[in-house]
Amino acid sequence: MKSLSNISDILCENNYFYILTHKNPDGDTLGSAYAVCRALQLKGKKAKILCNDKMSEKYKFMEKYIHVQDFNPEFIISVDVADTSQLGESLMEYSDRINLCIDHHMTNRNYADVTFVDSISSSTSEIIYKLVKEMGLDIDKGIAECIYTGLSTDTGCFSHSNVTAQTHRIAADLIEKGIDLSSINDILFKKKSKNFLTLEASLYKTIEYFFQGKCAVMTLTLDMIKKSEVPENELEGIASIPRNIDGVEVGITIREKPQNEYRVSVRTTTHVSAVGICNSFGGGGHACAAGCTIRGDIENVRSKLLLCIKEYLRP
Amino acid sequence: MKSLSNISDILCENNYFYILTHKNPDGDTLGSAYAVCRALQLKGKKAKILCNDKMSEKYKFMEKYIHVQDFNPEFIISVDVADTSQLGESLMEYSDRINLCIDHHMTNRNYADVTFVDSISSSTSEIIYKLVKEMGLDIDKGIAECIYTGLSTDTGCFSHSNVTAQTHRIAADLIEKGIDLSSINDILFKKKSKNFLTLEASLYKTIEYFFQGKCAVMTLTLDMIKKSEVPENELEGIASIPRNIDGVEVGITIREKPQNEYRVSVRTTTHVSAVGICNSFGGGGHACAAGCTIRGDIENVRSKLLLCIKEYLRP
Repeated sequence: MKSLSNISDILCENNYFYILTHKNPDGDTLGSAYAVCRALQLKGKKAKILCNDKMSEKYKFMEKYIHVQDFNPEFIISVDVADTSQLGESLMEYSDRINLCIDHHMTNRNYADVTFVDSISSSTSEIIYKLVKEMGLDIDKGIAECIYTGLSTDTGCFSHSNVTAQTHRIAADLIEKGIDLSSINDILFKKKSKNFLTLEASLYKTIEYFFQGKCAVMTLTLDMIKKSEVPENELEGIASIPRNIDGVEVGITIREKPQNEYRVSVRTTTHVSAVGICNSFGGGGHACAAGCTIRGDIENVRSKLLLCIKEYLRP
Repeated sequence: MKSLSNISDILCENNYFYILTHKNPDGDTLGSAYAVCRALQLKGKKAKILCNDKMSEKYKFMEKYIHVQDFNPEFIISVDVADTSQLGESLMEYSDRINLCIDHHMTNRNYADVTFVDSISSSTSEIIYKLVKEMGLDIDKGIAECIYTGLSTDTGCFSHSNVTAQTHRIAADLIEKGIDLSSINDILFKKKSKNFLTLEASLYKTIEYFFQGKCAVMTLTLDMIKKSEVPENELEGIASIPRNIDGVEVGITIREKPQNEYRVSVRTTTHVSAVGICNSFGGGGHACAAGCTIRGDIENVRSKLLLCIKEYLRP
C-alpha cells in the first residue's frame, strides 16, 4: 500500500479533481470530501464534490468552506466509499475510473487505481487529517470543522469503541484551530425536527421484546414515514434506538421498502456479531453494526430474523 | 493558590482521609472521589468516600476499584463541591473542618483550609488526572475509568463548549490505560429502560408550540410518572428535550408536583436568558438553564409562563 506521503505527492501532481462521496451521505463521507476539497482549492487546484443524494440540512454549514467550480475532471477520488455500489446510480459513470480511494472500512473492495485503507482509524476523516498535514497545509478552521464533523459523526461524539487515543489527540489539535465544537455537536446529535419527534414517539410504540428482553425489534413502515413527512436523510440515527434499551443485546430495526422488501439494521453489544447475523441474509457490515435486505411479508421477515438471532443468543 | 505539586505533598504527608462528594452525586464528583480514593489506597493510605445520597446504579462499576475501610479521619477532602450547602444534611458535620477542596466551579465559596479551583478544567476529574500524576503514581485502568467517567459526564461525552484541547489529550492518555470507554458511555448516556422509553413517547405527545415555534412546552404529570414507574433519578435529562427541537429558542418542561405545585425547567439558546425568565417567578439558575416553582392550576401556570416568555422573544 502506498503511504500518505505518496498519496500527498499524487494529489500535488494533479489539478482537476472530482471527489465522490457515498450515497445517503453521512458526516464522515461529507466531512472528508469537504476537507479534501478545501485543501485542494487552497493549493490552487480545481476541485468539486459529487454526491448521489441531497445532503441533510445539518451538514450544509460546510458549504461555505469551498468554492463551487466548473471544469472537466482529470483525477477522481472517492472518500469513505467501501464499494462502487455505494456511489449510487448518478455516480456509477465514474465507477471504473476512480484514481484514488481513501477509506477506513475493512471491507473496502479495492476498486480504485490507488487505495489507501486504514481500518484502525475511527473515520475516513481521521485519515484525511493526516493527509492534509502531509500536503504541507496549515489546517485552518474550515478544514478543522469538516474533519471534526467526520470524526464526531463516526464515533457518535467520541462514545463508540472505534475511538482511539489518536482520535482524541486529533480532536485536541482541531480544537486549537478554533472550531465551534458545541454548535457542530448540537447540529449533528441534539437537534430534532418536530416531525421527527412525532415519528419517534410512534416508533417507540412499535418496539417488541424477545428472548427475555435480550432482543428488541422496532418497525418503521412506509405509511409511518409518509404520515410523518420526515425526509429520508433524517432517519439515519434511528437504528441505534432498540440496542440502547436496558438489557438488549441485539437491536433490530425493520424498515419497510416498496415492493415487499425490508431493510434490516442490526446493532449489537460486543459479544454478539451483527455482521454474522446479516451475512446470513446476504448483507454485511461491522461487528456491532450491520445491515441486510430481506424480501417477503413482514411477519415472515421477522420470524426468519428471530430464528437466526436465537442461535447467536445461545449461551 | 497552592500548586498541584503542593497539594500532592500535603496528601503524601497525611494518612487517614475522608473524601466528600456533593449531594445528588453525578459522574464528576463520584469519578473524582473514586480516583482520589484509589490513588490514596495505592499509596498505602486509608481512604473512604462519603456521600449524602445513594448513587445511581450507573456509577456502581467504580465500587470495585476501592477497598471499604473503617477508621477515624485525620484529613478531609471535598471534590467538585462548590459550597458546603452542596454536601447535604448528613455531611454537614464536616462542613467547618474540610482541609482540602478540589473543584472546577468558578463559584467556589473557598470554605476549605486549602482550596484548589481551576475553572478552565471541564470537570474536577480533569484536575484529579493532573494531581494523580503529581503524586508520582502510574495511572492504572481503575483510576483511568473513574477519571474518564467524570470527564465524559461533565462534557456530555465531549460535546459541550467546556471541552478543551487538554480534555481530549487527557482522554487520549486514559484510553492508553485500557479503559472500556464505549461501555462507560453506554451506561452514562445511552441506556434507557423500557419504562423510560414508554414515558418518553408519552412526553413527546404533550409538546405544544407557541410564538411561531420558538417556544416549546412539554408537560409531565404526576399520573404519567406513576403509570410509567420510572424512578426519580432517571428523569434528570428530560428538561433538555423541548429546547433541542429545530427552531425552538425557549424549551419549557412543566412537571406536576403534589398540591397544585409545578416545577418548571427552562432551557434556552444563547440569546434568551433562562435565568431571567425564572427570576420572574422567584427561581434561579444559569444563562441557558434555569428553574422555578409556580403554584396554581396547570392552565394558569402555562399562561403566566407564556406571557413572560413573550417579552423575552420580542425581536
